[in-house]
Amino acid sequence: MNIRLILYITGWILNIEAVFMVPSVVVSLIYKEDCLPIVFAILICAVCGIALVIKKPENRQFSIKEGYVAVAMAWLVMSAAGMLPFMFAGAIPNPFNAFFETVSGFTTTGASILHSVESVPKGLIFWRSMTHWIGGMGILVFLISVIPMVGGSKMNLMKAESSGPSVSRIMPTAKESARMLYKIYIGMTVIMVVLLLADRMPLFDALTITFGTAGTGGFGVLNDSCASYTTYQQVVVTVFMILFAVNFNVYFFALTRKFKDAFSVEEARWYLLIVAGATGLIAFDIRGDHSSIWQAIQQAAFQVASIISTTGYSTTDFNQWPAVSCTVLVFLMILGGCSGSTSGGLKVCRLVVQVKQLARELLFYLYPGSVRQIRLDGKKLDTSIIRSINVFAGAYAMIFAVSLLLISFDGFDFTTNFTAVAATLSNIGPGLGKVGPASNFDLYSDFSKMVLSFDMLAGRLEIFPILLFFTPKTWKKF
Amino acid sequence: MNIRLILYITGWILNIEAVFMVPSVVVSLIYKEDCLPIVFAILICAVCGIALVIKKPENRQFSIKEGYVAVAMAWLVMSAAGMLPFMFAGAIPNPFNAFFETVSGFTTTGASILHSVESVPKGLIFWRSMTHWIGGMGILVFLISVIPMVGGSKMNLMKAESSGPSVSRIMPTAKESARMLYKIYIGMTVIMVVLLLADRMPLFDALTITFGTAGTGGFGVLNDSCASYTTYQQVVVTVFMILFAVNFNVYFFALTRKFKDAFSVEEARWYLLIVAGATGLIAFDIRGDHSSIWQAIQQAAFQVASIISTTGYSTTDFNQWPAVSCTVLVFLMILGGCSGSTSGGLKVCRLVVQVKQLARELLFYLYPGSVRQIRLDGKKLDTSIIRSINVFAGAYAMIFAVSLLLISFDGFDFTTNFTAVAATLSNIGPGLGKVGPASNFDLYSDFSKMVLSFDMLAGRLEIFPILLFFTPKTWKKF
Repeated sequence: MNIRLILYITGWILNIEAVFMVPSVVVSLIYKEDCLPIVFAILICAVCGIALVIKKPENRQFSIKEGYVAVAMAWLVMSAAGMLPFMFAGAIPNPFNAFFETVSGFTTTGASILHSVESVPKGLIFWRSMTHWIGGMGILVFLISVIPMVGGSKMNLMKAESSGPSVSRIMPTAKESARMLYKIYIGMTVIMVVLLLADRMPLFDALTITFGTAGTGGFGVLNDSCASYTTYQQVVVTVFMILFAVNFNVYFFALTRKFKDAFSVEEARWYLLIVAGATGLIAFDIRGDHSSIWQAIQQAAFQVASIISTTGYSTTDFNQWPAVSCTVLVFLMILGGCSGSTSGGLKVCRLVVQVKQLARELLFYLYPGSVRQIRLDGKKLDTSIIRSINVFAGAYAMIFAVSLLLISFDGFDFTTNFTAVAATLSNIGPGLGKVGPASNFDLYSDFSKMVLSFDMLAGRLEIFPILLFFTPKTWKKF
Repeated sequence: MNIRLILYITGWILNIEAVFMVPSVVVSLIYKEDCLPIVFAILICAVCGIALVIKKPENRQFSIKEGYVAVAMAWLVMSAAGMLPFMFAGAIPNPFNAFFETVSGFTTTGASILHSVESVPKGLIFWRSMTHWIGGMGILVFLISVIPMVGGSKMNLMKAESSGPSVSRIMPTAKESARMLYKIYIGMTVIMVVLLLADRMPLFDALTITFGTAGTGGFGVLNDSCASYTTYQQVVVTVFMILFAVNFNVYFFALTRKFKDAFSVEEARWYLLIVAGATGLIAFDIRGDHSSIWQAIQQAAFQVASIISTTGYSTTDFNQWPAVSCTVLVFLMILGGCSGSTSGGLKVCRLVVQVKQLARELLFYLYPGSVRQIRLDGKKLDTSIIRSINVFAGAYAMIFAVSLLLISFDGFDFTTNFTAVAATLSNIGPGLGKVGPASNFDLYSDFSKMVLSFDMLAGRLEIFPILLFFTPKTWKKF
């Protein structure tokens, strides 16, 4: 294990984090708040970070294992450092709560332990939303795109931090791919902010809501999440929640004018179909509570987009919706958006592959001699990818089960516990029952908060990096 | 598709069913009840059955597809015929209810729509419990063991009706294997009846409770299931529920004095470990409600055995148990017992293979060059079995999700719907919430009852036969 290199990378993560904290200091100053807590946090990050990067490691080659461990380490350290402003300011004095909230931010979960977000200083709220934006596309992807440092095998780092069973290299090198992803990401972020400002949303709200949408995180700045925004603003948020959960390859193809390729991304088509179907079903289910069917569709679309993209914003307490709607939302919670996007969950392409595997099995019984290959986007899918999808689903289910058991010791009802795990493991935010959109996760014990924090990290990093990090064997031979 | 042969087999199924109904007539006569409803049902079964078997089909070869379709057809026809006594007697006038109850019996689910089982005539109750015993080991397995009829490929029939990802041929031919299985099954049934009679349980109760235990079904004869039986009787039931959910290969090895082989069946060891662990955990969780820890252990063991073996008997309303216990029971519901037993659920060996797959994946990241094979009972597992296990888990999850969505239209809460699907798809019987052990499934609409009946059949026949039966392509080319 190349510990030296892993620490070097962790150092750069801390430096970048320090830089990303600076805008929050500016916000604090604008709102005439005490900016010292954030400044202290910046100093600590910078001092530790610089100490770790002063000497470049000689061996800069990464194995898959080291890529995974580095990513897990980076995310743990980043979360531990990211919680400092909340603690220094006394806004979240309990360290378990502060860690939970920060992990929730970086993993773009959006589950909160805050009872009233409006009583927290603006600078801290800005930092809280910023963590979504950083975590959405991934801080190591950012690192790769800006810092000329690691020798080779950068792809192993990107692989560990990106979502979905396989990373398609859209550009010749990892660095160029990472840059392209961030260009698209920043471009879409800017467009959304402008669209929100056009409706006279305050700049602070426009920025934070956009950060939450871009990262598919879901931290809001108002106690009622998005309920008090105008219909236009809610529609903008809806559209961008849907867009940020689309496989970014689609945008890359569109930008390079390969429109045919863009339309042929199978996962994106299934995803949009599911969004449309779920919206229709829920709109039909809740039509009685709304004055017009259009309003029902708009509300349904917002919530469907929010849950399938694993953002977690809400315009209403969907916990009160009828059973069919709640059931659909639970499915979307577990499913999530597209791979290669900022969303969480199992990812649509894993469902697609499962459906194709089932169809192949049935065809195998019907025509025993036939040999059929599973194809995605017209290309034959590698057996190692199919295997990793199957293992992933099993691992997801096992972590789900163990977490559910551990948090059930707190004694809450099955729906609450089940959706609390689903909402954190899939990086959504709110669940149903006592963790519904109208409440928060503070009711759980510190121990359960650690379990759920683990789930958020496992969900965001797609299980294996974080499992490897906590496997004793990983650390044996260095 | 060899329709002629499939109908021929269906005919024999009806004949055997008619024979199996005869003891219920005797029970009716003993209790001086109206035995005509059952006699009518016997006549209808026999007339239809004999008409179908009069002419032997020429081509008696079975493909896997035909084996699967024949099994699905046999089970549907058997259920449709088995509901006749309940309808003729007017005990269950609604045909959807009667079908649900009969499917629940044959699939050894034990979910009931009856509000008071004690008000139903004894003859019908006896038939109801008898369906468990028939369905437990499988009626086609019985057919193979007694009727010298199908030419070759009987293994394809056994495969389709037996549980678990693979059928190990314990004897040289399918016929001998089937006979051996039924010998063990009958032997264990007799021992259990004798043990219950030894404590002066009435013969009627001893027989029906044993049928329910042997098939891991769970239909009781008292409104309180097993609560009013003595501790000794409850312990006997507990032990036999555990035993009937063990892979029958273990008993075969023990009978043939291959004790080393018997102890090395990995699935059985995991199963017993899970039973012990779950019992310990629940006993600890409910210790406060009981006068002694022994009583808590006994109650916990009964319920754990009942749920993991997918029997579904209860001695208490475990719906009222604390959250940890309920959560553990939900896991056991989905898990089920061993393959090659009469139990339902996903089966322990599928979990074992999933865990081994996950371990292999992690080792693959740690030592990239390593090639590791998954072994079970010391033997290398065939990749086609691993594939079918993966597909099975996916198919199970998809059927689960679709069923959950369909029954949610009835408007009940998430816990009720979730555990109703889990309890039927895993062939357990009671769930939690409004379908807990103190209530029944009558609250659902007729449509939902059909969905849940489909789930019971899909669960018992392990999905593929019933899916193939309802696939239009299956019927295209005959």
